[in-house]
Parts: sequence; structure tokens; C-alpha cells
Amino acid sequence: MNPDFAHLTQYAKSFASLTPEDEILLKEMADRMLPHLQAVTDDFYGQLTAIPETQVFLEGRVEILKQTHVGWVKSLFTADLDEQFTEQQYKVGLVHVKVELPTEFMSGGMTLINSRLIQLVFELYGDEPEYTEKALKAINAVTGFSLLIMQQSYQEASLLEELERFLKITGMSRVLFDNLAAAYKTD
Amino acid sequence: MNPDFAHLTQYAKSFASLTPEDEILLKEMADRMLPHLQAVTDDFYGQLTAIPETQVFLEGRVEILKQTHVGWVKSLFTADLDEQFTEQQYKVGLVHVKVELPTEFMSGGMTLINSRLIQLVFELYGDEPEYTEKALKAINAVTGFSLLIMQQSYQEASLLEELERFLKITGMSRVLFDNLAAAYKTD
Repeated sequence: MNPDFAHLTQYAKSFASLTPEDEILLKEMADRMLPHLQAVTDDFYGQLTAIPETQVFLEGRVEILKQTHVGWVKSLFTADLDEQFTEQQYKVGLVHVKVELPTEFMSGGMTLINSRLIQLVFELYGDEPEYTEKALKAINAVTGFSLLIMQQSYQEASLLEELERFLKITGMSRVLFDNLAAAYKTD
Repeated sequence: MNPDFAHLTQYAKSFASLTPEDEILLKEMADRMLPHLQAVTDDFYGQLTAIPETQVFLEGRVEILKQTHVGWVKSLFTADLDEQFTEQQYKVGLVHVKVELPTEFMSGGMTLINSRLIQLVFELYGDEPEYTEKALKAINAVTGFSLLIMQQSYQEASLLEELERFLKITGMSRVLFDNLAAAYKTD
């Protein structure tokens, strides 16, 4: 069951303090940022491959993962951050559960990307401290916005997977379980 | 069962790209940062109270929560980021499950805190761009480090809670479930 994406968009924006001014600024930065985002993605996967725990998720798939990834990084500066965007981020969380990616890969990955984007912003805008500050706040907000939505769907999907695992192991039907759960609640 | 905290420390540091140089820098910044961290915490709770979904977790508890929170923010600049620190962050994740805090409160909260710390770093170090860049990377790394550990324990604890909920609902004993799970695995 899909959540109310309009509400989730609003909620995630307030929790990431992503303001309308940030959204305008991100699009304004797109022209200068975009030519460097492939390098951000390349460096990100370079750092990931240095972490032993990521190997099993990367082997033989790095090139295809990079393509999806750079599209996502670009979208932070080009997409309208609306319900459709929220729905896409939500789906990314679901995919991460499906491929059994550990939950900490999302926040860890976002930390690495933010670190690289901090460096890039100083390279491009370092001689304008006021602009640099605004740009870094907008980037922190949009990555936090995306992460929050992904993690919410990840959490929901992983609890549902746990229920399915339980039903398989016990041989219990979903109908029987739902009836027991309803009876338990009214006890 | 506790994880191997030495290994988790190493793993989380590599995923947050928290370097020995960052750790030295954070402690170096402590003197100038510490007098402003109560304001960071106050602003953080100010922003939280503006989000309707947080009300139920805050009502009547803001002052006591602020005390714990400011202690944690200070620790980012004063603590040795070692196994003991990792164990503490791990426990914070467990507490968040116990009080039924939604998973997105952790990443959302960290985004708000990072945003406020970006502002503070520019206020204090804005006239030294090179130092500002290093400081922001170190702060991004240490908040990411802390978040990754919290989220790993949160995820483990929430799956365990889900299992306990199944067992209560179905009236099944843990021993019987574990035996069925072992048999299922060898099928």
C-alpha cells in the first residue's frame, strides 16, 4: 500500500528544513554542478569498493550502478522536488530492501556523497563565502530529504519482509495471522 | 547480543570517511564550538516542535531531552571516537526503538543538526575558507558516523521487536520458533 505522497513530501521537507529558497538555489547551481557529478559518482564507488562489506553488492555491477547513481545525483539539482520525486525516492528504499542492502548503506552512502559535494562546492564557489554557505545548506537539505523518504520505505518494507519470513517458517497463512492479530489487539 | 564494537567502529568510520585528521580537528574546534552548542540544541528542538508528527514524543519532555541532546552534540567534539563511543551510539539506537521513535526521526534530526552546524561554522570560521571546508567535512563525517551506528542498532532491535510481536500474537514460544527456523534453513 502506497503512502500519501503529498503528505510525505511535506513531512520530509520540514524534517530536512528544505525551503523553497533551497529548491530555487539547487536549480540555479545545476549548470555549474552538473559537469562534475559523474566524478562525484565515480569517487563514491571508488570509496565504496574500499569497504570490504560492500563487495558482495558491487561485484560485476559497478558500471550499471554508477549509471543509476549519477542520474540520482543530477536529479537533486534538476528535478522538481514534488510528489513524483518523493515517490521515486520511496521506490529506491523498496529496491534496497529487495536486494538486501543493509540499512546503514543508505546513511553511510549519503555521508560519503555529502562529503564529496562539500569539496566540490568549495572548488566552484569557494571565493563567495555567502553563496557557499547557502549552497551547502541546500545540499544538506536535499540529500537529507531524499534519505528520509528512502529510509521510511526501507523500514516499512523490511518489517513486511520479516512478517513474510515468519509466515514461511511457521507455515501459517496470512489470513490466519491477520485474524489472530486483530483478536490480539481487541484483548 | 552485542556486536563486535571494535569492528563496528572501523566499519562506520570507513563508511563515514571519518579520518584521524578529522578526529584531531574536531577536538581542536571544541573550545570555540562548545559555547554555542546549547543554542544548537535549543534551535533543534524549536524546529522539531514545529513538525506536528513529533509532538507526541516531545510533550512535557523537551527540557530533559535537551539535556541529553546537548551532551551528545558536545561529545562529537570532545569524545574519543573509539569502541566506547560506538557502544554509546549503539545504545541510543536501541532506546529509540524502545520509545517507538519512527526511523526517519534519526536521519531527519541529523539533517537539521548538520544544517545548524553549517551555519555555526561559517559564523566562527567563515573568514578562513580552507579551515571552514575541513571543519564541515569533519562534522559531516562525525554526524554520519554516529547516525550509521544508531541506525544499525535501531534496525536490529526493530526486527527483534517484530518477531516478539509475532510470537505474542500467535502464542508461539521462542524455542518452538527457533527450532522451526533452524529446520526451515536446512530444507
